[in-house]
Amino acid sequence: MNAVRSAHRSVTAETIAIGSELLVGGRSDSNSIFITEALGRLGIEVRFKSIVGDDQADMVQVLKTAVSRAGVVIMTGGLGPTVDDCTREAVAKATGRRLARRKAALDGMTARLAQWGRQPNKGQLRQAMIPTGATVLANPVGSAPGFLLEWKGATLVSLPGVPREMEAMMMESVIPFLTEQLTRSPKSRPQPIIRQIFHTWGVPEADVDAQLLGLIPKGLPVDLGLLASPMGVLVSLTTKSGGTRPVSEDLLSSLAQEVRVRLKDCLFAEGRETMEEVVGRLLHEQRRTVALAESCTGGLIGHRLTQVPGSSAYVDRGAICYSNQSKVDMLAVPEELLVKHGAVSQEVAAAMAKGIRERAGVSVGLSVTGIAGPGGATATKPVGLVYVGLDGGAGAVITKEFRFHGDRSVIKQRSSQAALNLLRLWLIDRGRT
Amino acid sequence: MNAVRSAHRSVTAETIAIGSELLVGGRSDSNSIFITEALGRLGIEVRFKSIVGDDQADMVQVLKTAVSRAGVVIMTGGLGPTVDDCTREAVAKATGRRLARRKAALDGMTARLAQWGRQPNKGQLRQAMIPTGATVLANPVGSAPGFLLEWKGATLVSLPGVPREMEAMMMESVIPFLTEQLTRSPKSRPQPIIRQIFHTWGVPEADVDAQLLGLIPKGLPVDLGLLASPMGVLVSLTTKSGGTRPVSEDLLSSLAQEVRVRLKDCLFAEGRETMEEVVGRLLHEQRRTVALAESCTGGLIGHRLTQVPGSSAYVDRGAICYSNQSKVDMLAVPEELLVKHGAVSQEVAAAMAKGIRERAGVSVGLSVTGIAGPGGATATKPVGLVYVGLDGGAGAVITKEFRFHGDRSVIKQRSSQAALNLLRLWLIDRGRT
Repeated sequence: MNAVRSAHRSVTAETIAIGSELLVGGRSDSNSIFITEALGRLGIEVRFKSIVGDDQADMVQVLKTAVSRAGVVIMTGGLGPTVDDCTREAVAKATGRRLARRKAALDGMTARLAQWGRQPNKGQLRQAMIPTGATVLANPVGSAPGFLLEWKGATLVSLPGVPREMEAMMMESVIPFLTEQLTRSPKSRPQPIIRQIFHTWGVPEADVDAQLLGLIPKGLPVDLGLLASPMGVLVSLTTKSGGTRPVSEDLLSSLAQEVRVRLKDCLFAEGRETMEEVVGRLLHEQRRTVALAESCTGGLIGHRLTQVPGSSAYVDRGAICYSNQSKVDMLAVPEELLVKHGAVSQEVAAAMAKGIRERAGVSVGLSVTGIAGPGGATATKPVGLVYVGLDGGAGAVITKEFRFHGDRSVIKQRSSQAALNLLRLWLIDRGRT
Repeated sequence: MNAVRSAHRSVTAETIAIGSELLVGGRSDSNSIFITEALGRLGIEVRFKSIVGDDQADMVQVLKTAVSRAGVVIMTGGLGPTVDDCTREAVAKATGRRLARRKAALDGMTARLAQWGRQPNKGQLRQAMIPTGATVLANPVGSAPGFLLEWKGATLVSLPGVPREMEAMMMESVIPFLTEQLTRSPKSRPQPIIRQIFHTWGVPEADVDAQLLGLIPKGLPVDLGLLASPMGVLVSLTTKSGGTRPVSEDLLSSLAQEVRVRLKDCLFAEGRETMEEVVGRLLHEQRRTVALAESCTGGLIGHRLTQVPGSSAYVDRGAICYSNQSKVDMLAVPEELLVKHGAVSQEVAAAMAKGIRERAGVSVGLSVTGIAGPGGATATKPVGLVYVGLDGGAGAVITKEFRFHGDRSVIKQRSSQAALNLLRLWLIDRGRT
């Protein structure tokens, strides 16, 4: 694979997602994220991503552009059995090859379909038509085979668009192939691209930026990235594959350690871990149980906590208390509190947390009450005013006030994050004592 | 704007999303979906989408490719105040123009920052540097100005990557500009691309396909699209902009009507409407109230219903009953039912729906109990077994059994969709009587 080795195009890749539905919306191209990570571990950097519809001429155009600028080109989609699916034809057309039915492709597909008690139909037989000279890639989980070929110094790979099938074929065929090609030329083997991710909550992007000022020594081929979203600011350290000064693992871990020190408590998770997983892990470790009292979040906190497998061990119950009466019925919030302070108040947040903890008999009760908007604001209580409460027993109830911006959905998300973060900090504190 | 008018490239557009974070993941390019819809209404078809990092040479490469194949090129991102942001420089480099500070750009930004009580800093001053000959596009919601220029017969537009800013500038500047250009040449004005969307639930993709067989008369420039997801199968009718036989609105509405007839009850919404909005609309129209009893969905149904503004008028409360004890406490599910049939059973689903309806005093109680996995399965009850219950009072309780496939998250999603759909059909039935 000269393309990967050559000086100019070394470690450069492009993904091409094929399918008209990707152009008009309804689905995002999540495949390319997986491919980018998998190639990055080999030191191959995805620098371009293209999306094109089920149009043969457009696909040929995109393919030609891709091989002119990338050494590895990974296409996903357009390998199905319908007439819309024309990746095979487009690759044959672009590369000037014929399509021929290949035994390896047909046998694999027939065997797969036989497992399901079926025989290939006419459309599926088309799926065994592969450009001449290409290597057939077996599909261990579906019927559509993929293929790989060398063209104009680039490696061209065609995989199905179904994520499960694409992922299996990347790991079982494409990555081993590229690894072997890279290994054959150890001298030019690129540095793996390492990306470390840190999730923060509660500090504005500008302040995170200020906290990390001067972190990366000048000239070091490491990128510091910041990305703000309603769920917090994501910080990333990414090594550059083309760097002349390779970054050692030791150096990267000392940078990561410095990030942790500087971000302190606002760092809630690293890598793929989510807030709900962190909270779940702490609850599990400390053998504590939780119950929820949700008003403006409407069940979102419960939904998030129960996304984690095994959460039934520590999530006992939740009360979604939208009406005032339900706060009285389900949580024993005193009616006079609701009258005196209103449902969106520190006092009611505290009473909700206490109420659910006592009724459920759990270690900790967590509550949220607020105005998600767009309606419901008053002269003194604007949209985005949110109170979070936590009762860990022993009489001490913590409450916190927030003033969030954004639409209804954003305010719900931020409220759920604020509540889970309060619980996280409380659990960390309990774990210390 | 000759490019849009010229025969070859008429109605062809490309979007370019700029930003290294879009390459490595963490955020999908939702901007391009908005742009595709907005241009489609003018008859301009987005045929290519590109994503490129914050690398000036790569951006120049992508820009040159784009103008070679599209008449309208819309870039998003890379207009911020940091050194990473180099869209301005890349456009200047690609088109061979200089960058100069433009009064229109500076004044707009200064006025916007003054509203926030701030003055432009050094980085922000860079944002007023615009390629010579370009038209400055005002940013009505943020500080970064955009710009528009003609190059090699194509219209090149650069907008900020922040969705709210990009959307405002598309609607206030770009669409009026393109409309005017198209209007000047009424003869070649392209047909608008009309896309109608139908959301179905409960019928496999192959069956939806079979139901719609032969719907589109041969040669009619309308595409029928099907897209399966955990939330159901989406059906789309899209007119082709390049069709020689323009599709009249009458013809398209008769096709849409035929889709409705053929899909019947499995069609739950059209266009942008969601299941929770449909259910909310029906509850509101019928002045009914609902309460929820959620086990395996963990609050997801409550979260979905309360995403809809105004839902506090019809959502009274919900009980997230993860533990068996909570089903007894919160819903008065008889303990002998739990012992005899298990928590995941038709009998318990019915008792949960009845329990929450009676306790809340609402029109209808909706319940879900099931095994979301990966743990919790038994010899007779596999992962994915889900029961949904509905109690509308008057003694009649409906239950339905489902056997879903997929991971924990997918099973939760499908369970919530099944429960809401049961409520939808029940409400439609009540509305008829």
